[in-house]
Amino acid sequence: MHEFEIINRYFSKLSKKNNSALDLNDDVFFDKSKKIVISVDSYIEGTHFINFDYPELVIKKILRSSISDLICKGVIPKYYFISGSGDKKSFSRKNLEKISKTLKQEQKKYSIFLGGGDTVFSKKLSFTITSVGFSNKIVCRNNAKLHDDIYVTDNLGDSFIGLQILKRKINLSKNLSNYFINKYFQPKLHVRFAKKLIFLANTSIDISDGLVSDLEKLINRQKLSYKIFIKNIPISKNLNKLINLKIIKKKISSVSRGDDYQILFTAPPSKSRIISKISKSLGIKISKIGKICAIKQKSQIIDEKNKKITLKSKGYYHKF
Amino acid sequence: MHEFEIINRYFSKLSKKNNSALDLNDDVFFDKSKKIVISVDSYIEGTHFINFDYPELVIKKILRSSISDLICKGVIPKYYFISGSGDKKSFSRKNLEKISKTLKQEQKKYSIFLGGGDTVFSKKLSFTITSVGFSNKIVCRNNAKLHDDIYVTDNLGDSFIGLQILKRKINLSKNLSNYFINKYFQPKLHVRFAKKLIFLANTSIDISDGLVSDLEKLINRQKLSYKIFIKNIPISKNLNKLINLKIIKKKISSVSRGDDYQILFTAPPSKSRIISKISKSLGIKISKIGKICAIKQKSQIIDEKNKKITLKSKGYYHKF
Repeated sequence: MHEFEIINRYFSKLSKKNNSALDLNDDVFFDKSKKIVISVDSYIEGTHFINFDYPELVIKKILRSSISDLICKGVIPKYYFISGSGDKKSFSRKNLEKISKTLKQEQKKYSIFLGGGDTVFSKKLSFTITSVGFSNKIVCRNNAKLHDDIYVTDNLGDSFIGLQILKRKINLSKNLSNYFINKYFQPKLHVRFAKKLIFLANTSIDISDGLVSDLEKLINRQKLSYKIFIKNIPISKNLNKLINLKIIKKKISSVSRGDDYQILFTAPPSKSRIISKISKSLGIKISKIGKICAIKQKSQIIDEKNKKITLKSKGYYHKF
Repeated sequence: MHEFEIINRYFSKLSKKNNSALDLNDDVFFDKSKKIVISVDSYIEGTHFINFDYPELVIKKILRSSISDLICKGVIPKYYFISGSGDKKSFSRKNLEKISKTLKQEQKKYSIFLGGGDTVFSKKLSFTITSVGFSNKIVCRNNAKLHDDIYVTDNLGDSFIGLQILKRKINLSKNLSNYFINKYFQPKLHVRFAKKLIFLANTSIDISDGLVSDLEKLINRQKLSYKIFIKNIPISKNLNKLINLKIIKKKISSVSRGDDYQILFTAPPSKSRIISKISKSLGIKISKIGKICAIKQKSQIIDEKNKKITLKSKGYYHKF
């Protein structure tokens, strides 16, 4: 069963309607009266991370993935809770030392601190992270307006290449490998931009499952469609190199596979100038990749030769 | 490694000192400025529950165990988040239906609602529950005063007998079995008493690991000791019957094994009358079981014959 089906069928009715749980159809929980924003996510070895050979990298990745849920809603994370289940090997003194050291670095980087959590014994390694922030307002999903521009922060696709290298599906030079693997484990989050997002964006999401998959989720309850141009999707010089060398056959196949943790948002054309100003002043690449369109035309992905294309896979879907 | 050692050595330094995480040495996180109280706990099949043959019972038990952390601090739970990791069998349509129905019942019983969470695929079944409440004040651990009386709500020990029946270590009549198993899966929480606790108790904890083990945790950073009288520890008529029939050899061996989720607290002798008044008006059994003493005398457990005893096992300790 699809995770959305599970939520819709069994759990939506348990949340308060038109209220803080946002019908369980958003990245976060938002209690408007208490101004609190909460995100809860689980990460399983073998599903969300390959193994625990480098605890410091896994911890960085999952913590950033968790606070990314808040940041993409325009909310600054304040504290987090981490629950780890694992065996003696996963939680050896050496690994605990690495986990603790990494959390300390991340706490400094993002001005967050540990609120609590627990460690329990299990043969299977998993983590659940709860992140908490405070805000009067958040940028919700399903609030795009007709003719909005569609934007994305930074570059897409590097993380997916990193994962392919880790899975030994792509073989590159050591330098290039390190570059992409680093992008996979340490996505760059844009906390400073989050503060601006609340005044700019009509709707937003972070790209975890893939550009197209997340774009569809972003407007899944709206009578709207989208049109995006592959040529406008921002990629790194290194990824461009792989495409030119034909190591990657098609740009779209790497930029819509997820794990990017960049912010995908829409804003009215009237905000275009201020967005490019903020982009410059904060030194964060922000690219306009398409438009929100009326429902009467089907959503479109336009390739470099100006042709409509259909995707075989729109990204990662959690299924049972 | 002991879980306290893990926390002290690797994680305490990551929480803000003298601040809301309460040095990670309490049941909850308390952000005084935001008046928010949070508890996060994980439950693993095989460790925290035997199996998932009766999803409705397991869900009841773990949800109550989670909100019990708030209730024992004098805080009313408001919403909760549940993350489940499991396989197709654990999260079959039938089981999801049962989980959803049970959560609905519990929500009604405790006036709480679902804030969010997720379901992810894993070969090993586990849940993490985050419970959230709001309060200006909480009853902390390590705040007992010399000469305080030690109190406990309701009865202890029934839950442990239930677990022994489930593990087929005790064999009883169907009626008695049902009574104890029901106590194991559905601990009675005293939400209405929580509201009073804040004005009565100097310090408090819920009994999850065992009376003695949790009493020691309650004052583990204080220069104090305790003296408790086994004869004063409240037990049910049914448990008393098992002791009389010598099915249970010693009372202490069943009342200090945990899973009770009753509130253990201390209060000054001056509060004794008001506590017994509240006990009557709310219809909740509240028993005085001992005293907080000076550090110069060792902590004492006094048996029915007025003799000091030493426990082989003080309850359940999580270890790696």
